[in-house]
Amino acid sequence: MNERLGKLWQEYKEKVKAGQDPRTLYQQMVWPILLDFWKKSPVVEPQKFQFDVSIHTLGTSPEATTLAILGTRSSEVYVIHTPETRKYLEQIRRDVGVELYPIEIEKNDVVTIYKRIKEVVERNIGKTVALDVTGGTKAMSAGMASGGFFFRRFFPNIRVVYVDNEEYDEELRRPVAGSEKLVILPSPHEVLGDVDAFFALEHYSKGEFYEAQRYFRETAKKTKDNRYNVLADICVMYHAWYSLDIETAFEKSRKLVEELQTDTWLNHPLGKSRGFFETQSKILEAIKRFLEEKDYTRNKFGVFALAKTLLKKSEKHEMHGETILTALCAYRALELLLQERLSLYNLTPDMPLTDEDKIAIRREMSKILQKPEDQVEMHDKLGLFGMAILLIVKKDSCVQGIFDQKRLKALSLALQSRNSSLLIHGFDFPNEKQVEYIKECARKLLKDLEIRAELRLDPSTDMCFEKAGLDLFKW
Amino acid sequence: MNERLGKLWQEYKEKVKAGQDPRTLYQQMVWPILLDFWKKSPVVEPQKFQFDVSIHTLGTSPEATTLAILGTRSSEVYVIHTPETRKYLEQIRRDVGVELYPIEIEKNDVVTIYKRIKEVVERNIGKTVALDVTGGTKAMSAGMASGGFFFRRFFPNIRVVYVDNEEYDEELRRPVAGSEKLVILPSPHEVLGDVDAFFALEHYSKGEFYEAQRYFRETAKKTKDNRYNVLADICVMYHAWYSLDIETAFEKSRKLVEELQTDTWLNHPLGKSRGFFETQSKILEAIKRFLEEKDYTRNKFGVFALAKTLLKKSEKHEMHGETILTALCAYRALELLLQERLSLYNLTPDMPLTDEDKIAIRREMSKILQKPEDQVEMHDKLGLFGMAILLIVKKDSCVQGIFDQKRLKALSLALQSRNSSLLIHGFDFPNEKQVEYIKECARKLLKDLEIRAELRLDPSTDMCFEKAGLDLFKW
Repeated sequence: MNERLGKLWQEYKEKVKAGQDPRTLYQQMVWPILLDFWKKSPVVEPQKFQFDVSIHTLGTSPEATTLAILGTRSSEVYVIHTPETRKYLEQIRRDVGVELYPIEIEKNDVVTIYKRIKEVVERNIGKTVALDVTGGTKAMSAGMASGGFFFRRFFPNIRVVYVDNEEYDEELRRPVAGSEKLVILPSPHEVLGDVDAFFALEHYSKGEFYEAQRYFRETAKKTKDNRYNVLADICVMYHAWYSLDIETAFEKSRKLVEELQTDTWLNHPLGKSRGFFETQSKILEAIKRFLEEKDYTRNKFGVFALAKTLLKKSEKHEMHGETILTALCAYRALELLLQERLSLYNLTPDMPLTDEDKIAIRREMSKILQKPEDQVEMHDKLGLFGMAILLIVKKDSCVQGIFDQKRLKALSLALQSRNSSLLIHGFDFPNEKQVEYIKECARKLLKDLEIRAELRLDPSTDMCFEKAGLDLFKW
Repeated sequence: MNERLGKLWQEYKEKVKAGQDPRTLYQQMVWPILLDFWKKSPVVEPQKFQFDVSIHTLGTSPEATTLAILGTRSSEVYVIHTPETRKYLEQIRRDVGVELYPIEIEKNDVVTIYKRIKEVVERNIGKTVALDVTGGTKAMSAGMASGGFFFRRFFPNIRVVYVDNEEYDEELRRPVAGSEKLVILPSPHEVLGDVDAFFALEHYSKGEFYEAQRYFRETAKKTKDNRYNVLADICVMYHAWYSLDIETAFEKSRKLVEELQTDTWLNHPLGKSRGFFETQSKILEAIKRFLEEKDYTRNKFGVFALAKTLLKKSEKHEMHGETILTALCAYRALELLLQERLSLYNLTPDMPLTDEDKIAIRREMSKILQKPEDQVEMHDKLGLFGMAILLIVKKDSCVQGIFDQKRLKALSLALQSRNSSLLIHGFDFPNEKQVEYIKECARKLLKDLEIRAELRLDPSTDMCFEKAGLDLFKW
């Protein structure tokens, strides 16, 4: 077939040189053969594909658009044309033998192109859609290609295509007939392995460390660049930290600080920020030690860091509308901080109370709950409410200042209701207002602890509880 | 200025008509003036913008590329050219007076274009980058535009630009000098308000219902199409369901079923799937009733649905690497299912045990823990381990079959360790293997309950615990 077209092209060239009108001659002599060929077997790269729907921008070469329509094999064909190119529609319709849906726009109206693409893909969810950028102005094809890649994020069955040609006849200023092909443009993601790193960064910036880590590992594998594994390890560290798997987090942070001391990172932003990661490693070490030793007296920094971590986790869950988890983390932070406060009086919640304390607590509870003393329930192990009351009994000025006497009654329920959470043993769903109050109390106790124990970090304490900035992740 | 160029253009046209060579004449007569004008004040739409970096595809009109460089005002200029267009580089360099970084590619090598864009943007994180698609073949500009919109997802400072012209001189087949402008292509997201719905769908398909809901509300507001609020409500329902806020979930599902009966949805896929949402509403109602009445005997469906929900939630957390939450949900599911099993013997975990049962449990525990009977600790309220043992003592064949005697010892710790979770009262992080085993046991108990109580749903039980398919969200 190509041989036949090759011969034809030579004849055509000679006749044009002999003075015949190139356009008319092309229409009579070359086009019918080429059209026939494409109707039977269009040339498509990288391989033939049956599209359900296609959208084309039409310029002053209707033949190219016709080939694109035949190449996509689509049966629902939209043609975006301008007032100037409307005249070619009839010829295309005749040539392809399929009904067209014409869409008229002004020459450079990219916004309308976006709108039409959107309408078509929305009506055809699940179907394959070809966006053909062959014809029309640069504005039109840039709009189609841009729209194509924007919408492809949401509709993975969209492909951008165009008709290309292997050979161009410089003399005739025309593609050599038979050298045309429809190219299905690959996505950068398909052909560039290492754009996985971009997806990793996208997840990282949203705080989705587990997902980010997976993409970084993938990148390391594809690029054989081991530095991506270090980025993955940073993600593992943050993920473990905010999943409260402190042992893993600390282990990773320790290795990270070691790694950043090697020459590989000497001039890299990450290497230069080693101090930041060292501080984070110290934070994690303090929490780890606290979890092992439960020493509220000598490891103030550990209590502080764990409570701050829990409050940050609580906020993260709140941002995602996860009320139960928001509540659990806030309760746990408050409990820790009250225990720290009790330790100032050499008390723990498990310790047997003196009779004197018992009487005082019962009296205080009876006052707050407005119940006779003998109807006040008291457990061996103090719950959150009990701890707060014990501290009030001890005239702890900090707790007295933070826990609003008026609200303590309403709170008594909230403070006692943790165990009845649907996620623990019970069937209750937390009340958002109460959770907010619990968090507020915890935050105030945390602030008090920070000042009292003179905990100050470099850079700033708050910053050291955040992930490293994205600007460190480049080379 | 435009007036001056207008006059110049007329003179130029006349001279061309008089037979002078258009290209040489343009270079001598028109171009120096136009260049000078753009150097001082380039025409940019929608407004002037200072780019840090620019990448250009070069075709056979170096002047257009020169204008693009001047329009972007970039100081780091990359020019993608082919072997055929290399010859224009020198002229551009001279005209713009800035050093160029040439990048040679083969005519249709889109992959290399992607690679170069990637390298440049990676080296310039945080800087503004213009991708100019004015020159070159369709393949080159389609590649640039596509790459531009792909990378823009990760690097928001990328813009696709091109040089357009207001007036085209049909006779000379050239843009009228002075009518050129650099257009900064808007993103579909900027100009089409309602693409928020796409972001909603993207979140929905990932099971991020809270985020999806926000985008649907935004879409409803922007488009004034109230049907998007119904989609938002579907998201609220699923979010509440998997956040265990069953009351909200049921309330939303009830309203949804009502809404879908109205004429608006008569022929819509959502309306046609009303049966599916009705089943989901029944599931939620059963859970809600169970949470209120705690009736393990008559509301088998409620127990089943809650346990299945907890196991699904556990899996969701596992998928995101959240081990503590994976464990909490699995524990809770197992607890519910063991309680349901106890109810078959008219037992509850809070009930005082008969002396006979106490002795039998102690004996069984002593065997499993390999401890003398008097060293076995027993609590008033049975924990998970205690419940499992009680059922074994009762010769419950289902529990006997599921709980592997050999592994029960190792499990005893896991079953007792829920309260010591870092999120509850303790300082422990769960062991993944144990969590897997807990889940396996819960799954088997769930299966037994499903068969025993003859719970079968339409469409399939499993499907009714999943979100509605994306194909229902269109019109």
